[in-house]
Amino acid sequence: MNKYLFTFLLFATTISFSQDKDDEVQLKNIYKTALTNGQSYQWLDHLSNKIGGRLSGSLNAEKAVKYTKEELESLGLDKVWLQPVMVPKWVRGPKEVAYIEAQPGSKNEVPICALGGSVATPKEGIKAKVIEVESLEELDSLGEQKIKGKIVFYNRPMQADLINTFHAYGGCVDQRASGAKEAAKYGAVGVIVRSMNLRLDDFPHTGAMNYGNLPRRKWIPAAAISTNGAELLSKMIKWNLDTQFYFKQSCEQFKDVESYNVIGEMTGTEFPKEVMVVGGHLDSWDLGDGSHDDGAGVVQSMEVLRLLKKTGYKPKRTIRVVLFMNEENGLRGGRKYAEVARQKNERHVFALESDSGGFTPRGFSFDANDAAFAQVQSWRSLFKPYLIHYFEKGESGADIGPLKNNEIVMAGLRPDSQRYFDYHHAANDTFDAVNKRELELGAATMTSLMYLFDKYGVKTQPQPKIKG
Amino acid sequence: MNKYLFTFLLFATTISFSQDKDDEVQLKNIYKTALTNGQSYQWLDHLSNKIGGRLSGSLNAEKAVKYTKEELESLGLDKVWLQPVMVPKWVRGPKEVAYIEAQPGSKNEVPICALGGSVATPKEGIKAKVIEVESLEELDSLGEQKIKGKIVFYNRPMQADLINTFHAYGGCVDQRASGAKEAAKYGAVGVIVRSMNLRLDDFPHTGAMNYGNLPRRKWIPAAAISTNGAELLSKMIKWNLDTQFYFKQSCEQFKDVESYNVIGEMTGTEFPKEVMVVGGHLDSWDLGDGSHDDGAGVVQSMEVLRLLKKTGYKPKRTIRVVLFMNEENGLRGGRKYAEVARQKNERHVFALESDSGGFTPRGFSFDANDAAFAQVQSWRSLFKPYLIHYFEKGESGADIGPLKNNEIVMAGLRPDSQRYFDYHHAANDTFDAVNKRELELGAATMTSLMYLFDKYGVKTQPQPKIKG
Repeated sequence: MNKYLFTFLLFATTISFSQDKDDEVQLKNIYKTALTNGQSYQWLDHLSNKIGGRLSGSLNAEKAVKYTKEELESLGLDKVWLQPVMVPKWVRGPKEVAYIEAQPGSKNEVPICALGGSVATPKEGIKAKVIEVESLEELDSLGEQKIKGKIVFYNRPMQADLINTFHAYGGCVDQRASGAKEAAKYGAVGVIVRSMNLRLDDFPHTGAMNYGNLPRRKWIPAAAISTNGAELLSKMIKWNLDTQFYFKQSCEQFKDVESYNVIGEMTGTEFPKEVMVVGGHLDSWDLGDGSHDDGAGVVQSMEVLRLLKKTGYKPKRTIRVVLFMNEENGLRGGRKYAEVARQKNERHVFALESDSGGFTPRGFSFDANDAAFAQVQSWRSLFKPYLIHYFEKGESGADIGPLKNNEIVMAGLRPDSQRYFDYHHAANDTFDAVNKRELELGAATMTSLMYLFDKYGVKTQPQPKIKG
Repeated sequence: MNKYLFTFLLFATTISFSQDKDDEVQLKNIYKTALTNGQSYQWLDHLSNKIGGRLSGSLNAEKAVKYTKEELESLGLDKVWLQPVMVPKWVRGPKEVAYIEAQPGSKNEVPICALGGSVATPKEGIKAKVIEVESLEELDSLGEQKIKGKIVFYNRPMQADLINTFHAYGGCVDQRASGAKEAAKYGAVGVIVRSMNLRLDDFPHTGAMNYGNLPRRKWIPAAAISTNGAELLSKMIKWNLDTQFYFKQSCEQFKDVESYNVIGEMTGTEFPKEVMVVGGHLDSWDLGDGSHDDGAGVVQSMEVLRLLKKTGYKPKRTIRVVLFMNEENGLRGGRKYAEVARQKNERHVFALESDSGGFTPRGFSFDANDAAFAQVQSWRSLFKPYLIHYFEKGESGADIGPLKNNEIVMAGLRPDSQRYFDYHHAANDTFDAVNKRELELGAATMTSLMYLFDKYGVKTQPQPKIKG
């Protein structure tokens, strides 16, 4: 080794070491502040217990807009504002009723809930024979002859041996999203879908569905049934092929209404035109309080800015918290935010979303170029004391998705996923299902990543120039 | 590189690759079987809901011995037997009563529970002024003058910014274990200890305490107070220094009784004299059902042998499941097992304990020589798909502790620790606090490690010979 190289390496090592030391100290400070002097849990308590479920277009959603705006204002950020966005307004109406009639006169009540976006049944409800299918492919293979006039019962369970439960969700959710649209084509009169839940219990799980291009007159009502209810229904059908199912729901779609994304900003001291976003979605489904989905992501994102301020860190880049409206049934907030950003020629270099529950954080999934991903890998050891180990390429988040371009790096917080679908879109997604420390650790982990990307900048690979 | 070395490396790589492939397939099989065809959750349901809390010497503990023995027998192991052991029998008696009297006639009831091993109060209870301390050191600094005739209130909370909550427990538990013994030396009449719990809630958490060498006549009663109760008591004392505390408990220590360790064995096909142990403790505290502590460890350990059989694996070494009796208030089962092993000249090469709750597994902590620890590190990539990343040197488990010698490698399962002390030794340590998948993932992770150690053997470093 020559003398100059040696000196350079020594110098580089010293620099890198002192940087690492500073970063170690800052991360320690962030985690300690989150765990001993955090605000996220109290915010979530209010969102869940004082406001409750926050479906787009509802009064609760508007209360949540007002509350989070005021709370952000109290943090002393550089700017806080509302970004108007038109959102769909779907209302569930009175509690749904359903029963299995395995023989005339015998009624086994089962828990169901209308899927979000579904039409109502006729006022008197629907009663029909049931045909159980495992997939949209099986539906196609049965055809009109077997399906016409019946209720289609989609009963493919989530795959239990997938370690990441979101993969199991991804492998099943087509039944919920497209089941009604596809069954209607063959003349079905209604659709019942097994809840997206890995447990056997009595909670029906709602979620978005759509009718695609199907003409309005062909739309049929769709509901989710609890997993225990699905098991029972399946058994009853096998016992008696003439088993009938009754359900009644009164949901209704109204005209779009105005709502808002809630945005707060710490303006960058050196590169104010480089924008970094952290966010979750403020709307939720209506059955529970939306504590995990996505109250957790909302309060964690707010906490990121609070922790940066509280630890005395002044960002070089502009850091924005964005509480997106209408992720659940429209993604209007995410689309609007990206649209306005493009109109204003804002340069977004990084976006982070938390929308996988307030469970113990395991790491992040990155939609990133190789240079930025390598940069993240170099930070692994900083996160080790906090048991954050998962840094993989993958999806980031639905709300930040529309910001995607060739430059931006996007990431999603990845908490432990084992319990998420116990609560997802169901009445038990309530405050008591969230553990304070797990929530706070998530906020600290997000803050640490934002800090590192702000301090070192986001590595971008030059885009190959296309000759004109 | 010379030709021979190249050939050798190629050969070694091929071998290592095909070994890895086999191991990958076997681990996949283990995890899949655990998650889709597991037995641990059903066993835990029975232990928790049909039997309940299993304090040593209680009828429930005997029921648990009988039940687990029968279940192990049903697995078709090579041997199942009971190992007799004398255990202490401490009985709580009627529910404890306590109140704060901040001014004469005003009674604020607060939730307490006697600490395990404590003596009763006089029948009419104890009422006295309270002195709050943060530590045993503070107690010493106050001395007899300030303490005599009072109730000492130990109120040092668990340290919230420690990521591993067991470290926070370790930093506080001296108050519970030794608080009464130390306070009695200065003439205190009773001891109230803040529950070892990171949350603020209304559950008092019991746990072992002892009087050391203190003469019997000096023993004073000791109880735990819920964290909310502790906060209130602390506030009241500050408001009025003359605040009195009343408590009454009727616990009693009986003569030792006979109980059992429950043991099942798959005898090794190649090296039957090399014994590998996996276990948890069958006893629990009496307030809840002991579902996390340590019902989870019990059923996971049983499941290890079941999963090995179910996946068709025939161990080369002898694999034993040991369900230890009396970890909580005596460790008699662990000591007896080690004593008998030494008497029989059995060679134990590996022991694994699960006694940190049935939460998502993160990895293992190893009490191991460098060679065995390096061996474990080489298996890291096999565990990566299951998000198992924690392989560190550290403590293993209390029950297997007495097996320690120069040769044996010992390990403890390390589940996510954030929620453990929400339930530990309290009335809410019940079946519903355990998630099926998290429990099953723990069992699969333990099985995978046992499989690897069995297949490859445990690397031992030769002990330096001491010249006689």
